[in-house]
Amino acid sequence: MDGIVGLRSNAGVEQRRRIRSGSFTGPTAGLAAGNVQANLVILPRSYANDFLRFAVANPKPCPILAVSEPGDPRFPTLGEDLDIRTDLPRYRVWRDGVMVEEPVDVSHVWQDDLVSFAIGCSFSFEEALVEDGIEIRHIACGSNVPMYRTNIPCVSAGVFHGPLVVSMRPLKPADAIRAVQITSRFPSVHGAPVHLGLPAAIGIADINKPDYGDAVPIGADELPVFWACGVTPQAVIAQAKPPFCITHAPGCMLITDLRNTKLAAL
Amino acid sequence: MDGIVGLRSNAGVEQRRRIRSGSFTGPTAGLAAGNVQANLVILPRSYANDFLRFAVANPKPCPILAVSEPGDPRFPTLGEDLDIRTDLPRYRVWRDGVMVEEPVDVSHVWQDDLVSFAIGCSFSFEEALVEDGIEIRHIACGSNVPMYRTNIPCVSAGVFHGPLVVSMRPLKPADAIRAVQITSRFPSVHGAPVHLGLPAAIGIADINKPDYGDAVPIGADELPVFWACGVTPQAVIAQAKPPFCITHAPGCMLITDLRNTKLAAL
Repeated sequence: MDGIVGLRSNAGVEQRRRIRSGSFTGPTAGLAAGNVQANLVILPRSYANDFLRFAVANPKPCPILAVSEPGDPRFPTLGEDLDIRTDLPRYRVWRDGVMVEEPVDVSHVWQDDLVSFAIGCSFSFEEALVEDGIEIRHIACGSNVPMYRTNIPCVSAGVFHGPLVVSMRPLKPADAIRAVQITSRFPSVHGAPVHLGLPAAIGIADINKPDYGDAVPIGADELPVFWACGVTPQAVIAQAKPPFCITHAPGCMLITDLRNTKLAAL
Repeated sequence: MDGIVGLRSNAGVEQRRRIRSGSFTGPTAGLAAGNVQANLVILPRSYANDFLRFAVANPKPCPILAVSEPGDPRFPTLGEDLDIRTDLPRYRVWRDGVMVEEPVDVSHVWQDDLVSFAIGCSFSFEEALVEDGIEIRHIACGSNVPMYRTNIPCVSAGVFHGPLVVSMRPLKPADAIRAVQITSRFPSVHGAPVHLGLPAAIGIADINKPDYGDAVPIGADELPVFWACGVTPQAVIAQAKPPFCITHAPGCMLITDLRNTKLAAL
């Protein structure tokens, strides 16, 4: 029973149970349509405090939706019957900054000092743009969104530091203006763009060579529009090399029970 | 007693009385700071209905703040003791589309069938931008804002038709994004920009040759940002050539008792 905009639906819990059972291990785009999906970062308590300070200081790339109690695999504000160890289709396990495993369940590496962070994801604001009739190029192309390291430094916190990573969507100028209005309503999923139109001004030498994801065509009547990106915290963690860390695997997000429309600030 | 933001102040009525007395005949920029200033169009009733339909169909260039009763020189919703025939520093009188006089008072040409339109003015949103720390180039240069005829047609109504005229302010990309957010809050004074970054896409062949106002320098790290402009209705009226019309003289606006902050939709 999904589709009643603004109401909590149980499509989220149904998808999580299906994933938990092991019958689905792919990307989550399009599942439980209208529900918020989240980036996942899990760190030992000794690193979690600095990471939380980093996220609070850099809310555009790292908008925190929820932080778990240490050792607790539940996220009661994000969904009922939610177990963070089993409910994502695929995870990445990192040791000393090196990815060592891509399991479909992390129960075997769970520790009592682990703190989980659910971080807002661009799926939510892309849904709002599409709803307004704006074409999202990488979706039209069936590819990953192009992402770029910028020359804009994040605010450091403890061992966590590094440049802002941005995602890019080409838009006609009037759609870019509309996209600023729409995404400004969603501060908990990256909010308004951070830049548009002049890639070199933020240290992007070649717009056709993204640092992550895939290049997409940009029309002569379009501007590249840049949003702060959830890859920023992943890049920062990879650089900090904590002894242990778990993240979602790319595209395999945490599906919550929250509705995207509920994230709108206005 | 001015300066209490959000409260009706009596700086407006004081300035209007000073102007009415004939002791001030210059531009109104900076007078009664924080008060809404308005473009003025006065038309015979037989043209006023079509013009109102034109304005309603084109709210971005023609945001109506108030329409008077036919023949009534007052605007009770805009200010106390306001006489539209005497309270602007300078007017333009038009006959058959030709400007015939630039008087400081229009009592001598007043008719009982005249309808007055107060139309929102960019002074209000510029104040909000400056308040946020954004430099407005033409103010810094001490010149008029550059304005351009575009290839975007207005919606026609009766004899009133023509292209959208836009004003341009160069901004760094992050300031352009902030300016979209700020001016979106002020739909009654032109609202959000209509375009940015690609002048040719809206029919502007040379950004350094505005159709009205003065050219301003644009930095290599800046984008031209375009707002719908109150010159649009003036250009449309000039083209429609009504037998009789009164407008404000450029820069000599109607000072109201309303506060700019009160125009914010959010």
